[in-house]
Amino acid sequence: MAITLNQSDAGFEERFATFLTTKREASPDVDSAVAAIIADVRARGDEALVGHTQKFDGADLRSLGIAVSKADIAKAYGEADAETIEALKFARERIRSHHQRQRPADDRYTDTAGVELGSLWTAVEAVGLYVPGGTASYPSSVLMNAIPAVVAGVERIVMVVPAPGGAINPLVLVAADLAGVSEIYRVGGAQAVAALAYGTESIRPVAKIVGPGNAYVAAAKRQVFGTVGIDMIAGPSEVLVVADADNDPDWIAADLLAQAEHDAAAQSILITDDPALASAVEGAVMRQLKSLPRAETAAASWRDFGAIILVETLDSAIPLINRIAAEHLELTIKDADAFLPHIRNAGAVFLGRHTPEVIGDYVGGSNHVLPTARSARFSSGLSVLDFMKRTSILKLGPEQLRALAPAAIALARAEGLEAHGRSVAIRLNI
Amino acid sequence: MAITLNQSDAGFEERFATFLTTKREASPDVDSAVAAIIADVRARGDEALVGHTQKFDGADLRSLGIAVSKADIAKAYGEADAETIEALKFARERIRSHHQRQRPADDRYTDTAGVELGSLWTAVEAVGLYVPGGTASYPSSVLMNAIPAVVAGVERIVMVVPAPGGAINPLVLVAADLAGVSEIYRVGGAQAVAALAYGTESIRPVAKIVGPGNAYVAAAKRQVFGTVGIDMIAGPSEVLVVADADNDPDWIAADLLAQAEHDAAAQSILITDDPALASAVEGAVMRQLKSLPRAETAAASWRDFGAIILVETLDSAIPLINRIAAEHLELTIKDADAFLPHIRNAGAVFLGRHTPEVIGDYVGGSNHVLPTARSARFSSGLSVLDFMKRTSILKLGPEQLRALAPAAIALARAEGLEAHGRSVAIRLNI
Repeated sequence: MAITLNQSDAGFEERFATFLTTKREASPDVDSAVAAIIADVRARGDEALVGHTQKFDGADLRSLGIAVSKADIAKAYGEADAETIEALKFARERIRSHHQRQRPADDRYTDTAGVELGSLWTAVEAVGLYVPGGTASYPSSVLMNAIPAVVAGVERIVMVVPAPGGAINPLVLVAADLAGVSEIYRVGGAQAVAALAYGTESIRPVAKIVGPGNAYVAAAKRQVFGTVGIDMIAGPSEVLVVADADNDPDWIAADLLAQAEHDAAAQSILITDDPALASAVEGAVMRQLKSLPRAETAAASWRDFGAIILVETLDSAIPLINRIAAEHLELTIKDADAFLPHIRNAGAVFLGRHTPEVIGDYVGGSNHVLPTARSARFSSGLSVLDFMKRTSILKLGPEQLRALAPAAIALARAEGLEAHGRSVAIRLNI
Repeated sequence: MAITLNQSDAGFEERFATFLTTKREASPDVDSAVAAIIADVRARGDEALVGHTQKFDGADLRSLGIAVSKADIAKAYGEADAETIEALKFARERIRSHHQRQRPADDRYTDTAGVELGSLWTAVEAVGLYVPGGTASYPSSVLMNAIPAVVAGVERIVMVVPAPGGAINPLVLVAADLAGVSEIYRVGGAQAVAALAYGTESIRPVAKIVGPGNAYVAAAKRQVFGTVGIDMIAGPSEVLVVADADNDPDWIAADLLAQAEHDAAAQSILITDDPALASAVEGAVMRQLKSLPRAETAAASWRDFGAIILVETLDSAIPLINRIAAEHLELTIKDADAFLPHIRNAGAVFLGRHTPEVIGDYVGGSNHVLPTARSARFSSGLSVLDFMKRTSILKLGPEQLRALAPAAIALARAEGLEAHGRSVAIRLNI
């Protein structure tokens, strides 16, 4: 049973505020263990990768090789189901086509003072992509992380993926190949992050590392940040479904459970103005749970973090929706388009009754790497911009320098920076 | 004396690699002190702000007030020099006009399958702006941090600035008022960052915190990251001047010293293909140093971190320039525009002999908050985008859902996520 919050109850605001700040994940303190692994990889390179991989993944890189070979990839195609390969290709084309629209345009112009200004975009030269092993080794995530980098123009996309017991999910290798990943190494954990940041004999360093991982991977990314760039640290997934009375409770329940099956720390929330729908959805969740292979995970998520919020009107839900700032927001209501301009904070919005969030996970075309844990208040999903950077340009001639000099010199002197003033004045003999 | 590296010497590559990775800043371990301050502000709110401010800044907020009032700002205008106020207004207009070009456009479209997609940009609702006290309390930085937020459409821009002994630089208050800052509080350090992230009785929380600060401020920003967004952690400033033979050594020396006077950990680098220019610049630096008010700081920076790199040809400097990935890059060479396309990594580029970097610090119009410590390899200067976030949009009708369903269901099943498949299938009775 998820909790129910009723907007018309006294004490709602306090309960809602508590709900908002509930932590869903323990953060085990692995910082010192991770620091030791990173130091070891910096000191011993490949030898350290071999040692840690033997210990954590039970895989012998001396015989398997650190690098995944072309033959390994060919073998993976042989092992993968043909229908799934076709589905990956279908997804790839849709993701690529959407992300191509995100390429930023350079801007170079001359202003009324004759000063030339500009913003020029360039791709990051080399990017590392972390892919988890085991059950969370998702080929769709490989597409979602690699394709924006390819579209940005990144030359080297370096994937690392642990091979527990020596095995890598063949679909992950196929997805990497289809997406355009340039190099793949069978290492994981903090040791893989260290190798990407500092390099070893086998793995040349990259400039930025993206992709999800466990607590060790997240801590390692935090520790190497500065030496390389990192993406956001992803938390457990979440969905907020906003539904009016005119909905099939089974559809809503299916959407809530799709999120809940990811992880016991995932969160599914329903906001509705119809108490009858709320009860019907609760019943449908319980019924559908019974036939789910991942029933245990989904049940734990729904029990511990699921919520049904009853509101008086959908309009009165708007401030709640913006405070929740959900990773995924479904608007399964009469006129979703008219409601949309009120949405201020959300990673992705799914409009109408025929846009289940799952479409966005795989084949919608937009990215499924989205801000979690209310971070949609200040950050965005993964995009081509995450793999590019902007250089600003200034160009003055003598006339422009003369025009701008007095203000620049005045500000430099006001800030006590005499050498700043001189670097302008010396060019004008003033 | 700065070090000199000569590209034609044996051992150059090794020396250059060591030079690149030299740390210029000690990072004192203040994490536990900062964690205690943050916990105290969360527990005791304003009372903690008053206590820490008394201790660290020697200022009594009980009598001064936590908030800076309209009367305080009016008083600051009275204390500020009229010419400097005019210079701030001149800078504001140029910065605003450049940043207005950075506003991203929403993108909403229907693809060939009839699927509606989109990317919608919204401003962050509330932003905190940290401004250091003391000698590093720069009005120009207030403009550079606040104006992009104003242009983005941020409603609440909340400035915090310590008042050592009760005093705040009047120009900082004037700059804040001119830029459009909405609230100002006279608190600093980790306690100010904690107040911005979690709120107190006087200070409502924000969603993102930007602005430079000392080791305590940087550690506090790292610790509250996740609860709020943060900008990059700025390191000491740096300039790379690339000069051909046809340069006045005094101009180059002035540019190198403008950077060096910031901080003993600042870095000034000259790359040239002309040994005679290199010697002449070295001499000019020594001469100019003598008449600088901040000679001690500038001399320490030049001695400890300054460098002259002699190259055989300017073309052979390109890989070095891109590896250095300087915050500021001056191309004071014959055809700077033709050289520009080779530049891959730089925060800002200043083209030609009449564009000293200092113009970009104040009145060029582009932002002076730029990536330091080689992070231009993976990040960009501050822009309007840092104060906005993108929400992706998907909308399918029954027909589009039918078209996309088979691939989505195939991928969900391949990933072992049965509830994902069901949330699509249930809508199509498949």
